[in-house]
Amino acid sequence: MIERITALAGGVGGAKLLLGFSKIHPASSLSAIINTGDDSIFHGLYVCPDLDTVMYTLAGLSDPFTGWGIAGDTRAVLNQLNIYGRPTWFTLGDRDVATHICRTEMLNNGYTLSDVVGFLAKRLGVAVNLFPMSDNIVQTKVATEEGLLNLEDYFVRLKTQPVVKNVQFEGAETAQMSYGFLDALQKSELLVFCPSNPIISINPILAVGSARTQIKNFSGLRVAVSPIVGGKAIRGPAAKMMEELGYESSAFSVAQMYQDLCDVFVIDNADKGYVQLIQELGLRVLCTNTIMLELEDKIRLAQEILDYANSA
Amino acid sequence: MIERITALAGGVGGAKLLLGFSKIHPASSLSAIINTGDDSIFHGLYVCPDLDTVMYTLAGLSDPFTGWGIAGDTRAVLNQLNIYGRPTWFTLGDRDVATHICRTEMLNNGYTLSDVVGFLAKRLGVAVNLFPMSDNIVQTKVATEEGLLNLEDYFVRLKTQPVVKNVQFEGAETAQMSYGFLDALQKSELLVFCPSNPIISINPILAVGSARTQIKNFSGLRVAVSPIVGGKAIRGPAAKMMEELGYESSAFSVAQMYQDLCDVFVIDNADKGYVQLIQELGLRVLCTNTIMLELEDKIRLAQEILDYANSA
Repeated sequence: MIERITALAGGVGGAKLLLGFSKIHPASSLSAIINTGDDSIFHGLYVCPDLDTVMYTLAGLSDPFTGWGIAGDTRAVLNQLNIYGRPTWFTLGDRDVATHICRTEMLNNGYTLSDVVGFLAKRLGVAVNLFPMSDNIVQTKVATEEGLLNLEDYFVRLKTQPVVKNVQFEGAETAQMSYGFLDALQKSELLVFCPSNPIISINPILAVGSARTQIKNFSGLRVAVSPIVGGKAIRGPAAKMMEELGYESSAFSVAQMYQDLCDVFVIDNADKGYVQLIQELGLRVLCTNTIMLELEDKIRLAQEILDYANSA
Repeated sequence: MIERITALAGGVGGAKLLLGFSKIHPASSLSAIINTGDDSIFHGLYVCPDLDTVMYTLAGLSDPFTGWGIAGDTRAVLNQLNIYGRPTWFTLGDRDVATHICRTEMLNNGYTLSDVVGFLAKRLGVAVNLFPMSDNIVQTKVATEEGLLNLEDYFVRLKTQPVVKNVQFEGAETAQMSYGFLDALQKSELLVFCPSNPIISINPILAVGSARTQIKNFSGLRVAVSPIVGGKAIRGPAAKMMEELGYESSAFSVAQMYQDLCDVFVIDNADKGYVQLIQELGLRVLCTNTIMLELEDKIRLAQEILDYANSA
């Protein structure tokens, strides 16, 4: 029986599957390791887009339409910052601003990002163990024809329009995995790669310190869920980025990326044509419905993964 | 003819008279020097209560009921900070928070408080020259039976309940007057002490560097308006503080405080019994209605002071 689960996740896509797991598994035995490569400083405030998306989602606060931010949040602060001539292309809701204010103050007072996330999550009633991939600063940089861009600059300000030449994770080599990440890997029997963008959500996590080696040596079962269905990303620029970087935009291509890091690859029924190809990579394949629209979809997919792991 | 006017002010009371002057005198020839002794850091944000009160008032944004804050401002950030367990006794509206975020970022980037005030005021359409009394940190500390308190701690959190033993202005001696303060004093023909609390609004300004000496040597006319009418403060704890510090709570007592710093003392008609006593201090007296409820009261009082100065 699987007792402890660790999941690697980026923002919205990862949050969905994590929410599913949180409904079927004791939260205290569920750890989420979140990408922090697109953490950014806006208006002097330290913003963690993926951590907050996961935290708000697990707290039941997230905006059901956007997937990020707090449902019903107002924008008085942002509007006033606009009056002050500040660049406001990155949307910050008012309640969300409080999160960033609180985090910035704690970081400036010497707390680690892990400390901060633990504190904020507890206050929001999130019992799942949330950890940043690292307490050191790692910055995902996208090399494009318009220069080397911070991830949110590329993603939000430029709406993923520039063609991507390569993606770098500045600081990743010398960064340490957060203690929570290391500890969770060592104690879990199941490691799940959420259906997050492999290039800008999962790869930054893998790039931190010895993370890739630790995952290669993981003693339990490693299950990766494809974020690409029918050649398209369920959400976000994963397919576009993959193509620009010379990969085929397919579930098979993602399986190749994770080939030496996972044991089981989960694909959507729409991609069942890839089953044999993926098996030939040495991976087992779980073929099911991976589209998570409603809460019941998230729970069902989490349950199928857990059932598969328990019977493996 | 008076061309340039400089006014010393704290928060709400000073802002009222400044608003009056701004309606009858070219804003570019009007300088307001504002107390920064109760500047505080809340949630890591640099908050300037008096500067903001004056700025919002002159911008036509201030809350007509409280006198501070922005009219109609919401409190989503504060409510969320409360969820995070932060002390929220100091009210911060959402638009107001944007002011503090912007200021904190600019200060952290090396701008002076004068730079910040100039920038924010311009963005809000305030043409009056606003200057902090100093670009250095001066902290008004109130010694009470409950210990040495920051001003806002005493004023807002403890609602001015503790008995005051003395008031100190930490850092004032070594602080420099802001360049705007020094420059305005040198170029103005009229210096007005707004009807602000002498102990915690005007005295901190006088305590900065050579301010008291500069004001003693001021070449034009110096007019001080009593914040005490009929023995009571029009607003705030001035009367209570004066009594606790061993002063009589009266317009005459304020005149004694300013005796060697001003030429004309403005009292309310209710205090006309003090005219002779104040004259015996060597001051001229302007006796009029000093209560400023409506905009027309503010304009009229400013006009009376200006007329008096022009005919002096």
